[in-house]
Amino acid sequence: MNHQPVSDLGYALLDTDRAARTGDPEVVYGAGKSPAQVVEILRTLHAAHPERAVLATRLTTEAVEAVTTELPDAEVDDVARAVTLGPLPSAQGTVTIVSAGTSDAPVAAEAALTARVYGAGVRLVNDVGVAGLHRVLARREELASANCLIVVAGMEGALPSVVGGLTGVPLVAVPTSVGYGASFGGVAALLGMLNSCAPGVTVVNIDNGFGAGVFAARVARAAR
Amino acid sequence: MNHQPVSDLGYALLDTDRAARTGDPEVVYGAGKSPAQVVEILRTLHAAHPERAVLATRLTTEAVEAVTTELPDAEVDDVARAVTLGPLPSAQGTVTIVSAGTSDAPVAAEAALTARVYGAGVRLVNDVGVAGLHRVLARREELASANCLIVVAGMEGALPSVVGGLTGVPLVAVPTSVGYGASFGGVAALLGMLNSCAPGVTVVNIDNGFGAGVFAARVARAAR
Amino acid sequence: MNHQPVSDLGYALLDTDRAARTGDPEVVYGAGKSPAQVVEILRTLHAAHPERAVLATRLTTEAVEAVTTELPDAEVDDVARAVTLGPLPSAQGTVTIVSAGTSDAPVAAEAALTARVYGAGVRLVNDVGVAGLHRVLARREELASANCLIVVAGMEGALPSVVGGLTGVPLVAVPTSVGYGASFGGVAALLGMLNSCAPGVTVVNIDNGFGAGVFAARVARAAR
Amino acid sequence: MNHQPVSDLGYALLDTDRAARTGDPEVVYGAGKSPAQVVEILRTLHAAHPERAVLATRLTTEAVEAVTTELPDAEVDDVARAVTLGPLPSAQGTVTIVSAGTSDAPVAAEAALTARVYGAGVRLVNDVGVAGLHRVLARREELASANCLIVVAGMEGALPSVVGGLTGVPLVAVPTSVGYGASFGGVAALLGMLNSCAPGVTVVNIDNGFGAGVFAARVARAAR
Amino acid sequence: MNHQPVSDLGYALLDTDRAARTGDPEVVYGAGKSPAQVVEILRTLHAAHPERAVLATRLTTEAVEAVTTELPDAEVDDVARAVTLGPLPSAQGTVTIVSAGTSDAPVAAEAALTARVYGAGVRLVNDVGVAGLHRVLARREELASANCLIVVAGMEGALPSVVGGLTGVPLVAVPTSVGYGASFGGVAALLGMLNSCAPGVTVVNIDNGFGAGVFAARVARAAR
Amino acid sequence: MNHQPVSDLGYALLDTDRAARTGDPEVVYGAGKSPAQVVEILRTLHAAHPERAVLATRLTTEAVEAVTTELPDAEVDDVARAVTLGPLPSAQGTVTIVSAGTSDAPVAAEAALTARVYGAGVRLVNDVGVAGLHRVLARREELASANCLIVVAGMEGALPSVVGGLTGVPLVAVPTSVGYGASFGGVAALLGMLNSCAPGVTVVNIDNGFGAGVFAARVARAAR
Amino acid sequence: MNHQPVSDLGYALLDTDRAARTGDPEVVYGAGKSPAQVVEILRTLHAAHPERAVLATRLTTEAVEAVTTELPDAEVDDVARAVTLGPLPSAQGTVTIVSAGTSDAPVAAEAALTARVYGAGVRLVNDVGVAGLHRVLARREELASANCLIVVAGMEGALPSVVGGLTGVPLVAVPTSVGYGASFGGVAALLGMLNSCAPGVTVVNIDNGFGAGVFAARVARAAR
Amino acid sequence: MNHQPVSDLGYALLDTDRAARTGDPEVVYGAGKSPAQVVEILRTLHAAHPERAVLATRLTTEAVEAVTTELPDAEVDDVARAVTLGPLPSAQGTVTIVSAGTSDAPVAAEAALTARVYGAGVRLVNDVGVAGLHRVLARREELASANCLIVVAGMEGALPSVVGGLTGVPLVAVPTSVGYGASFGGVAALLGMLNSCAPGVTVVNIDNGFGAGVFAARVARAAR
Repeated sequence: MNHQPVSDLGYALLDTDRAARTGDPEVVYGAGKSPAQVVEILRTLHAAHPERAVLATRLTTEAVEAVTTELPDAEVDDVARAVTLGPLPSAQGTVTIVSAGTSDAPVAAEAALTARVYGAGVRLVNDVGVAGLHRVLARREELASANCLIVVAGMEGALPSVVGGLTGVPLVAVPTSVGYGASFGGVAALLGMLNSCAPGVTVVNIDNGFGAGVFAARVARAAR
Repeated sequence: MNHQPVSDLGYALLDTDRAARTGDPEVVYGAGKSPAQVVEILRTLHAAHPERAVLATRLTTEAVEAVTTELPDAEVDDVARAVTLGPLPSAQGTVTIVSAGTSDAPVAAEAALTARVYGAGVRLVNDVGVAGLHRVLARREELASANCLIVVAGMEGALPSVVGGLTGVPLVAVPTSVGYGASFGGVAALLGMLNSCAPGVTVVNIDNGFGAGVFAARVARAAR
Repeated sequence: MNHQPVSDLGYALLDTDRAARTGDPEVVYGAGKSPAQVVEILRTLHAAHPERAVLATRLTTEAVEAVTTELPDAEVDDVARAVTLGPLPSAQGTVTIVSAGTSDAPVAAEAALTARVYGAGVRLVNDVGVAGLHRVLARREELASANCLIVVAGMEGALPSVVGGLTGVPLVAVPTSVGYGASFGGVAALLGMLNSCAPGVTVVNIDNGFGAGVFAARVARAAR
Repeated sequence: MNHQPVSDLGYALLDTDRAARTGDPEVVYGAGKSPAQVVEILRTLHAAHPERAVLATRLTTEAVEAVTTELPDAEVDDVARAVTLGPLPSAQGTVTIVSAGTSDAPVAAEAALTARVYGAGVRLVNDVGVAGLHRVLARREELASANCLIVVAGMEGALPSVVGGLTGVPLVAVPTSVGYGASFGGVAALLGMLNSCAPGVTVVNIDNGFGAGVFAARVARAAR
Repeated sequence: MNHQPVSDLGYALLDTDRAARTGDPEVVYGAGKSPAQVVEILRTLHAAHPERAVLATRLTTEAVEAVTTELPDAEVDDVARAVTLGPLPSAQGTVTIVSAGTSDAPVAAEAALTARVYGAGVRLVNDVGVAGLHRVLARREELASANCLIVVAGMEGALPSVVGGLTGVPLVAVPTSVGYGASFGGVAALLGMLNSCAPGVTVVNIDNGFGAGVFAARVARAAR
Repeated sequence: MNHQPVSDLGYALLDTDRAARTGDPEVVYGAGKSPAQVVEILRTLHAAHPERAVLATRLTTEAVEAVTTELPDAEVDDVARAVTLGPLPSAQGTVTIVSAGTSDAPVAAEAALTARVYGAGVRLVNDVGVAGLHRVLARREELASANCLIVVAGMEGALPSVVGGLTGVPLVAVPTSVGYGASFGGVAALLGMLNSCAPGVTVVNIDNGFGAGVFAARVARAAR
Repeated sequence: MNHQPVSDLGYALLDTDRAARTGDPEVVYGAGKSPAQVVEILRTLHAAHPERAVLATRLTTEAVEAVTTELPDAEVDDVARAVTLGPLPSAQGTVTIVSAGTSDAPVAAEAALTARVYGAGVRLVNDVGVAGLHRVLARREELASANCLIVVAGMEGALPSVVGGLTGVPLVAVPTSVGYGASFGGVAALLGMLNSCAPGVTVVNIDNGFGAGVFAARVARAAR
Repeated sequence: MNHQPVSDLGYALLDTDRAARTGDPEVVYGAGKSPAQVVEILRTLHAAHPERAVLATRLTTEAVEAVTTELPDAEVDDVARAVTLGPLPSAQGTVTIVSAGTSDAPVAAEAALTARVYGAGVRLVNDVGVAGLHRVLARREELASANCLIVVAGMEGALPSVVGGLTGVPLVAVPTSVGYGASFGGVAALLGMLNSCAPGVTVVNIDNGFGAGVFAARVARAAR
């Protein structure tokens, strides 16, 4: 445990061997970091792992612009506010991401890109809210064929209960901060998902598409 | 406003003309009242309104027994923990009460009895939770033919969103305290219902089958 | 359930047959949508339903301006921050909207416009707070003659209890985020309304004039 | 400050000169104290102040019985769950205590007894809830003639707003834990009172009839 | 009750006879009102009550400027963010306002100005926090000589307990939103004050210097 | 969707084809059910699925005794307060359940039994709290070899973060209600787990060993 | 790290070398453990560390009786609901424990016994609440001479602010669950202490006398 | 107590003898103060205590610039957003500050500077989060040699539990507002730390590096 190859950038210790330990890629959590810091960390991690994509999430507009300018090989996902640098791994298994409304799209996109960077194939099923049940029911076969489902919803967060009642696929629910008033910034959706009457629903933090993507990719990669 | 026919029982002023003002029956809220008090108030209100049923809700087992012994003409609803004394009014319109799980039955029964005493006809659709969507869908026509819907659910409280997406009938949602942990005694269901993505869902207090029944009966009685 | 006439705009699936299913108009929820998106969705929905008004709510100043410029036939309601496009339906029944203070006006206006677009006639009774009881009492007959009441109030949210004690008309209470400190953005009013001692009060989300309007219009349209 | 005449009973320091400092009587807060402790403290305080009533509140049934047996001169108030020992002071000024429902009676009684022991005259106006406005209005003159009002209410706690709009008398609101579900043990009433739209309403802790009584007595005693 | 002299400004009903009913002045609550509205309401109320000061609180910088320009006779209190228009009443009794820290000054100033406009004399005791007890103790006599105390504090809100233990004067506590982290915008101070171990402390909403001033003035005006 | 083989027991609709739809067993949630109801539902479900174990959870002592008496073939798990009736399926894959303290054992046992009934093999690693890190580190290889991890912890809920930093195995965290004071019945642990800095941690409701077991079994069964 | 001398009792791994690692004694947290378990763990730990007292806290009456019967050498502290078995260490430094009211005594006693078992000398200063400031001030010199202070208070939790303003001694505040209504089981006191205006106050969980005792003993033992 | 040398700046009473009472330096809490006020208070306090550094914390960028311009001898700590004016005291004992992530750096820096100004030596151990346990374990000896530890962490706040299990050094935990969604601005970390399973962890307010620094310095200064 004593000789980790750690790079010290002054404001951050980079643990460039984490990938070896967990089979996962390197990731930069962009919130609270300056554009210059994002660029520098991406560059350092990419140099250490040129064979595999590094992911940066929660980027400001300024950080996306800095990355575009400084790292022209980076791929930008505008909906997810995220970038990748380096080749994506081959896709193993399938993660299907279901979202309830158009406002949930950024979180769904973050989950999708993360799952892809972590090595899973991804499918997106957008805008299938609970109040229009026929849309969900029309996709039932597609949902049942995934290795792991990610269901993204704000407001009352009921979609995971509906989807979870239709299939036996492992399902990760992501509450979003979409809503107003007594949604309390996503708390209503979070509580709804934690109390889902559909068995086998697990939940991540509000707006945490990244965490859901990591988890689902691990499940899908390992599935038969 | 000065000469209300009010009976003073020492511990409670009984406003025996409320019915005349609002077209509604007299009601005894049993929580916190002794069995003897429940019996005495029921008897007094019944004497003032012999032509129309008086309702007592939230009764303890002891209060139900006291009513049974002292007021043999009273009708007991064991599931709703409620009694009526006096003839029920003729039924106008239809209130359909939908409940998600067996644990929600007492609240659904209180709503049903209340709506009936307040002058509406009632139908019950029990145990049609969100995780078994086919049960809800199989009753779709029946739901759409009601004058007002009451949807009772605990845990994540998603059923009103699903039912509300299927019909344009006015829908009152009743969160129940069924659940554990992060259901917080019905708060999760309450928030879910307040944030329903189905337009036109209104909500009452946790476990308030009575209030939903009053409201729905008023809507159904006045419907064409 | 397989052949819904759904338009796909890329960022939103538009379900242009919803009206047929529920008898309700099409609605655009403007929060989180760009001015261009609001205009495009309004235009698409109007083209599909030229015979009936489409409603757009929660519009930013920029979205209102874009609608004014791009869709000159649209009617703007500045207080409600909403627009309609297309002819209003004939009015059936009456929804009376009561508001407590001048700061509650935008929510009351949203409720009124929504009820009108959903097919009910509307009356507004503004600025009749609880601390000046005579104002409410002076309008008692008018309140009792409505088919459904919407009562809008912030701060302690006591107005629905007072109004609900005066009539037997179905009453939907709308808490607003008006207040400060321990009003917690409308939570105090919401809790007050959920705990109203007046029987038969139902509640919608904080500032949700739209939801109250939908519900009340459905009740009023169906009333004798 | 060094020579306070303090009695040390082992489990409690009794500050028998507090009365001299503030003009108030001695009080025993009975919650969490054994019947024997209540009796012993009452006896000690009474011995130090035989000329003025000592008050004990929040007594269990066992403590009331022990006081009755051991201190036959004590006066028991069963509704308030409180006792006094020693002569009541002469009454200066008037505190009027208004309560909303029968379940609020214990808190109203505690407030009334406290105000009396602290030297004010008291009047009680019970069971005048907001949903029956005519009862409040009928007592308007009586309310306006008090030196201080105490308004006790549970559930939505709207009564202080109504009463506060009728008079300019200083008004202390006492939320009670009466209610269920989203009343959260009195929190809804507490928030309602803190956000009252009637100016000049102050609030005490949930069920704190004692604190309201102390405050109101001080106001009434000093009034012209 | 039918012929109140109410002025209708379109966006607000002005009840210009309230003063007659309660003996209090007219007040404009400036939050959420435009500068022009503040000016217009002030002018209308002043015209109706030229003999007595009208108060406007919670003014934005823009509103203060508009008042200064349009109503040159208005007196501006910069700390309180409030103005008065018209002659102050003669002062009856004394309200002493104690504040804990420099950040609490705006709330203390609002309380002071309000109490003055409502007819009481006022004294200010600033910056006497609990962590420097000697400052409070040094003012003990002064505190004990008031007719009513207002104690303003943020953070843990302990000052009312300390002051309340020193005197028997009626004491209104005002929690402020001063603090960070687990102060939750004044909730910690509010809870501390509601749970004060000093008997007879009453509380108003967070930052509600106005409400405390109204209440205290009513107490002080009526004191012997 | 119209001909589900549903048994109607009066108080519960039993959907005896759910297993066919999702590959999962039948389950009885015992909370709120009488011993007789638990026995009857177990017997009915077992008759419909004699080839596969039915699971009953959250049983009271009385329910366990009734099952033991009435259904002698049932297997009782005293720690998990659960029983099974019928043969367990063969085990596919491995779910490893890690728990922090002895008080967490019932939840860990419920998770373990559930995962086994749902078709996964299970291993238990008990009493490896964060404050004794060497215990966790000593089991590192074992943890890394599972197909899915369930980590059960109360109090601050830190164990999932520690375990999640050691492996890349999918990890479901279960907060328990173990703790006191500011643990708020498991809320502190729940929040800790939702905010875990270890990527890819998902969470279920407080004390929901059942839900974690279902989810983990589905993951493990499908793993290569 | 591989060969910890750990005893496995089936329901608990006992880490009998913890003392060597941290210089602290062994402790049994009694909540949730049966009397027999408490006795067995105490006996096992005492056998491993006969030279130093083992502490058991949060014991039920039944557990205390079992210990008294089975382990006659154990010392029982009835107020703290705790026992020790084995010789107390010599006392280094002084921890002074200050408590506000008689109801806080159990928590203060737990803190005192814990500090003593962890090797510090202890002094108790009871019943010196904020509303009787002279009692605190009279003990000022005594407080200033301690190496660490523990201040225990419920309700508004103001005592640490007062004591913290009097001395520069490290101060650990312990909120207790003493109070009612808006004390929310100790939350008001906890928030008050976290927001203390006296610099250098640290806080432990509600009723956590044990944690405060451990911390303070470590500080006092190491002090010059 | 009557002759404190207090300077009155109009908006703040400066108690320039506090240092003499507690052995601590003077401090300016910059939040809510204008740049000019910060400069003036710093200058006044420095003039009264030229021999010892005065500390100003929570400074805005504007305040830092004003200090730099007006008080060229001041030392600025950009990370901590704080300045000192005057010579630092000699360092007694060691406070080691451990932080979990780069976003926690400002709070860690404030704690470090505060501890230094209060007379302790400081060491910083940055970026050793729980998900990379080897980093913490590698610094174990260093942690064990401190006189007091400050552990700074946001999100789930697990680091104090891990560090507290490794040593017996007094440990003050500082939750930070780093996180999103269900971190609720630091509440999740705060609750995690209050419920730490490691004995002897005490906690300060969210982001309160200053308070932790004061406390730890007092402990370290007094240590052998």
